Amino acid sequence: MEIVKTMDELRAARKKLNTPVGLVPTMGFLHAGHLSLVKRARQECDSVVVSIYVNPTQFGPNEDFSAYPRNLEQDLNLLREAGADLVWVPTEVVMYPEGYQTFVTVDEVTRVLEGAMRPTHFRGVTTIVAKLFNAVQPDKAYFGQKDAQQVAVLQQMVWDLNFNLDMIICPIVREKDGLALSSRNTYLDTDQRKAALVLSCSLRKARKLFADGERDCRKIREEMDAVFSQEPLAKVQYISLAAPRTLQELDQIDNRALVSMAIYVGKTRLIDNTVLGNEDTTLD
Amino acid sequence: MEIVKTMDELRAARKKLNTPVGLVPTMGFLHAGHLSLVKRARQECDSVVVSIYVNPTQFGPNEDFSAYPRNLEQDLNLLREAGADLVWVPTEVVMYPEGYQTFVTVDEVTRVLEGAMRPTHFRGVTTIVAKLFNAVQPDKAYFGQKDAQQVAVLQQMVWDLNFNLDMIICPIVREKDGLALSSRNTYLDTDQRKAALVLSCSLRKARKLFADGERDCRKIREEMDAVFSQEPLAKVQYISLAAPRTLQELDQIDNRALVSMAIYVGKTRLIDNTVLGNEDTTLD
Repeated sequence: MEIVKTMDELRAARKKLNTPVGLVPTMGFLHAGHLSLVKRARQECDSVVVSIYVNPTQFGPNEDFSAYPRNLEQDLNLLREAGADLVWVPTEVVMYPEGYQTFVTVDEVTRVLEGAMRPTHFRGVTTIVAKLFNAVQPDKAYFGQKDAQQVAVLQQMVWDLNFNLDMIICPIVREKDGLALSSRNTYLDTDQRKAALVLSCSLRKARKLFADGERDCRKIREEMDAVFSQEPLAKVQYISLAAPRTLQELDQIDNRALVSMAIYVGKTRLIDNTVLGNEDTTLD
Repeated sequence: MEIVKTMDELRAARKKLNTPVGLVPTMGFLHAGHLSLVKRARQECDSVVVSIYVNPTQFGPNEDFSAYPRNLEQDLNLLREAGADLVWVPTEVVMYPEGYQTFVTVDEVTRVLEGAMRPTHFRGVTTIVAKLFNAVQPDKAYFGQKDAQQVAVLQQMVWDLNFNLDMIICPIVREKDGLALSSRNTYLDTDQRKAALVLSCSLRKARKLFADGERDCRKIREEMDAVFSQEPLAKVQYISLAAPRTLQELDQIDNRALVSMAIYVGKTRLIDNTVLGNEDTTLD
């Protein structure tokens, strides 16, 4: 496994890779969710590139950029075990050198949900991912369904800007009790960790209602709200039932719906989702 | 020479090309300026791709998008003679399908000069060129120095977004009397055509002053203004002496300066430029 930092090193290493090349972009502090992406890439591609970069432009001014957990040595060990070929760990001066001034923005699909709560977040995400795509030129790029809106936004960017690659979206990985893996789970104390289970509980509730024939979004949302109201440590920021591609809110589910939400448990902001009308082996 | 329209056709044709691949993006109505780019690409690359697309997003609401001259048959004949391998002529539905919503923006360097006069112009340029780069994946991309700010903006975008290609900037091509070639010259009547010579005259004046040791930008601008004041059909929009990379206005020339300007001759807007401190065989 080769580890590179600068753009020149990356380009030189990229040239030596056999194709197809799979890219797994990460912010490090890797967990089984990230590793599921690496394993999938390993199965489907001749070469697997992983980037590790905590991207400052996708954090808001009051968000947790400096507190975001980092453990490069552990990450590299995990990636070695998982069979990555090339790990790119750029520094800020590589990614955003002095005079940097170019941004990629996706419009409608970034205005709602996470984008409404975090106004500059997706501009940071699309910009850094466009940079990673151009630098690595992968044939396939792997992302987790955990960040459902990120996936929708990046897929829109790939279509619109004609990136010559396939987006591969992998299922959410959960703890045995249902909590979706997230690097931010490390912020939770024991009580908060228990409280965070309302996320997966409410999603299971939604899936049950849908399986029983309920198609009225207001009713599903009310029942989910009832789950949250039983957990005093959890504060709901939003619960959404939206069209999976455009993320426009639905009144009625004709086909599929992305159920997604953000909550605060203490100061920690957590998100989770499922797609009604799709199989979801992580919750079923 | 292969001619393709859709993205699938383009990708299939691109796969068959030998590398390095050179790309010449154009809006068609080709003249000797465009052809000089094709010839340079022919010399330096194993394959030459030319795109022809009058990009609506780089025209302002009151600009000449619908009037912009088009002559595809003539363009294709010229490209055949010049030795292009692949010509991509996308339609609007290929480039901006329903639901399109992604844009690339470059900040500081687009705020001045043309960008100040044409507020949405460069967002259109950077977006379409990013799309062309991703779709064609060239090793080298060829642009004319005629659009000096466009060149500066696109070079900044290439650096910032880590496009894996070299920007090749080719000299302005002029008529024998000095008028820089432009598809928009076709709008000029005989008197306007003569009046447009103030552009190259004033640039020659600037070069003469610089060659004689003048370094005070205010003085050079005054002398250029004097040239324009002798031509009643020409109305100056701006004259700029700026740092060639950042395009920030200069008081004093320490090293090099981009002298650029926009004028109206009748309803036709014309631009021209030269770099003081560089050789400029088109004006010397």
